Amino acid sequence: MSAAPAAAPAGLAPRDILRLGDGVVEMLDQTRLPAHAVIVRLAEWPEVVDAIRSMVVRGAPAIGIAGAMGVALAAQRAAGGDLESARAEVARAAAALRGARPTAVNLSRAVDRQADLAAGHPGPAEALAADLAAAARALHADEVERCERMGRHAVGLLSRGARILTHCNAGALATGGYGTALGVVRAAFAADPTVRVVVDETRPLLQGARLTAWELEREGIPYTLIADAMAAAMMASGRVTHVVVGADRIAANGDVVNKIGTYGLAILAREHGIPMIVAAPTTTLDPSTPAGTDVVIEERAADEVRGLDLFGRPAAPEAASVVNPAFDVTPARLVSAIVSEAGVHRPPYERSLRAALGAPP
Amino acid sequence: MSAAPAAAPAGLAPRDILRLGDGVVEMLDQTRLPAHAVIVRLAEWPEVVDAIRSMVVRGAPAIGIAGAMGVALAAQRAAGGDLESARAEVARAAAALRGARPTAVNLSRAVDRQADLAAGHPGPAEALAADLAAAARALHADEVERCERMGRHAVGLLSRGARILTHCNAGALATGGYGTALGVVRAAFAADPTVRVVVDETRPLLQGARLTAWELEREGIPYTLIADAMAAAMMASGRVTHVVVGADRIAANGDVVNKIGTYGLAILAREHGIPMIVAAPTTTLDPSTPAGTDVVIEERAADEVRGLDLFGRPAAPEAASVVNPAFDVTPARLVSAIVSEAGVHRPPYERSLRAALGAPP
Repeated sequence: MSAAPAAAPAGLAPRDILRLGDGVVEMLDQTRLPAHAVIVRLAEWPEVVDAIRSMVVRGAPAIGIAGAMGVALAAQRAAGGDLESARAEVARAAAALRGARPTAVNLSRAVDRQADLAAGHPGPAEALAADLAAAARALHADEVERCERMGRHAVGLLSRGARILTHCNAGALATGGYGTALGVVRAAFAADPTVRVVVDETRPLLQGARLTAWELEREGIPYTLIADAMAAAMMASGRVTHVVVGADRIAANGDVVNKIGTYGLAILAREHGIPMIVAAPTTTLDPSTPAGTDVVIEERAADEVRGLDLFGRPAAPEAASVVNPAFDVTPARLVSAIVSEAGVHRPPYERSLRAALGAPP
Repeated sequence: MSAAPAAAPAGLAPRDILRLGDGVVEMLDQTRLPAHAVIVRLAEWPEVVDAIRSMVVRGAPAIGIAGAMGVALAAQRAAGGDLESARAEVARAAAALRGARPTAVNLSRAVDRQADLAAGHPGPAEALAADLAAAARALHADEVERCERMGRHAVGLLSRGARILTHCNAGALATGGYGTALGVVRAAFAADPTVRVVVDETRPLLQGARLTAWELEREGIPYTLIADAMAAAMMASGRVTHVVVGADRIAANGDVVNKIGTYGLAILAREHGIPMIVAAPTTTLDPSTPAGTDVVIEERAADEVRGLDLFGRPAAPEAASVVNPAFDVTPARLVSAIVSEAGVHRPPYERSLRAALGAPP
C-alpha cells in the first residue's frame, strides 16, 4: 500500500472515495480524516483485505464495493496466466475478502457474486479480469444511484425545518458516494435550507465526529456535534425532530443491525415521540436472516475503547477489561420506517421488505 | 500551584484526595489520572478556584469540601492582619469560589456556610482562620461518613450477583473518600464478592474510564469498561441488573441533575425493567429548587468534544459547531430510589426527601 498525500478532493465524487484502476484499487483513507485527505493505492488484493479490516474503508455499501474491487484486482493481477490459475487466485481472494468483516451483508454478498461470476466464466483470464472489473464498477455506480433515489423517497418523511440526528457515518464515505442517512440529509437540505443536523460523535472510533462532520462541513450543511450521551437531553429540549441512520444489515423481520448505539437511540426516540428512520439500499436487506438476533456481531479490539483522552494520554487503566461490540440490534418494533431505493417501507416489515426485493408479498 | 509527582497513594484515604494543611490545600490532580497520581499544593485561594473550574477536583461533594477549604485558606493567609481585613478577604474568596462551577448545590452551600461563619465571627483573625479550617475538615469527615452510611443502606436494594452499571465517577475521588454510587458498589462487593461493575467511559472527559476504572482497579473490584453508547446493548443482553449513579443536585420534587448521559440511561433502564438508583448525601438535596428544570446547566468548552481521537489527532473539523452541557436532568418518575445517609427514599419524593432533611413531611 502506498500513500500519497493529496489535497482534499473538491467535490467528493465517487471516484475520490473508491476507484478500481488497471491493477490498482485507490481509496480515500478514512482513518486519517478529518486532518488529512489521503488516497491510498492498493496493488495486491491482500492489501484490500487489510484496508477493510482496519477501516481505511468502512460502511456497509462501501465495503461491499471494495470487496468486489478486491476480487477484480486479484483477477487483473492473474490475467497474464491461464484461466484455472486466475480462477484459483480469485477464489483465494474471495474467501479472504468475505471474512474481512463479518457483520454487513453487503460485503459477503458482493464478494459471492464476483466469485460466482468467476466460477462460471468461460475465459480466457483477460476476459475474466475485464468482466470482474466491469461488475465491480457497475456495483459502485448502482450503489450511488440507489442512494440518490433513496434521498428522493425520504424527503417526504421529514417536516420543514427538520432537526435530524444521525449516528456514525452513513454518508458518501460509507457508500462510495452520496450516502444513505446523509443522502437523506443532502436531499432534505437541498429541498429546505432550514434543515439542521445533530451529529453523534460515535465512540469509540468517532466516525460521526471525524467523517460525518467532515462531509457536512464540505457540503456547507449546518450541524452540531455532540457526545453520544447528549442525545437524550437534545431530544428532551426539542432540538431533535427526526433520527435518521443507516444500516449494516436488515433482517427479514425488519430488525436493524447498525453501529453500536443505534438501539439506544431508537428507545430514546420513541420515548420522545420522534420518528426513527433507517435509510439503507436493498443490498443491505438480508431475507435469509430471519431476525437481528441471528447476526454475528463483530467484537473489536479493547484498545479502541481504552484509547486516548483529550490530551493524548491513556484514557483508562492499561489492564481495564473492555467489551467493544461494533454493532447492536434495533428491534423492528422501534423502527418507524425503512427507506430504500425502492421506496418507503412500513411495518409489518416482513411483508414490506419482501415486496421491496421484488419477491411475492 | 506546585505539583510534586507522588507514588500512587496506597489506600486512597480521604487525606490523599483532599487535605487542608496550614496555609495550603493539597489535592490529588484528577485531570492526570489514570497515568499519573500527582498531589498538587495550592497556597492561594484563587488557585483553589482554578482547580475547581479546571476539574483538578470534581464531583459534587468533593467540590463542596474544596470550596470550604478554599475559604479557610483565605482566612489562614489573612490571619496575621486585623479581623476586618480577614473578613473582607474571606468574602472575596467566597464570592469567587461560589461561582467556580454553577450546577452542584454542594459548592454554593458549603461556601455560604463558611461565609456566614466568617460574617458573624467575633475574631481575632487567627481564631477565624482556625474555626473556618475546623469547619472545612469537619465537612470533609461528615461527607465521607455520609457515604459509608449510604453504602450500608443501599446494599438491601441490590440482588445477589448484581451487575451494576455506573456513569461518570461518583467515587472516593468525587466525594473526598468512599464515594456515593461507588460507595454503594464497595459496600455491595464487600457483602457479595460476585458483584460486578459495568463502567460507562463518560465522554467527553472520560471520568468513567479515567477515574472510576482506576478506583475499581485499585480496590480489586472486577469491572468492564464500555463506550457510553453500548449501555443499551448491555442491558438488552442481561449484562446489567442495576444502574447506580450519583447526583450533582436533587430538586425538591426528586428530579436528579447529574452528569450528561444520566437521563438517557434512566430511560434505557426503565425500558429493560432495571432499577435506576441514585446515591447522594442529603447535602446534595436542594429543597429550594422546586424542579430539575430550574437548575442552571453548565455549558463547557467545545474543545472537550472536538478533542482527540484514539491516535491523538483532531477528532473533528476545527470549525465544528458543538454543544457541551455537563449535566442533564432525569425526571423523578424515572428514578426507582434515592439513597442518602438518612436511608432509602421512594416516590413520591416531594414528601420522602423532605423527611430525609428532617423537615415535617
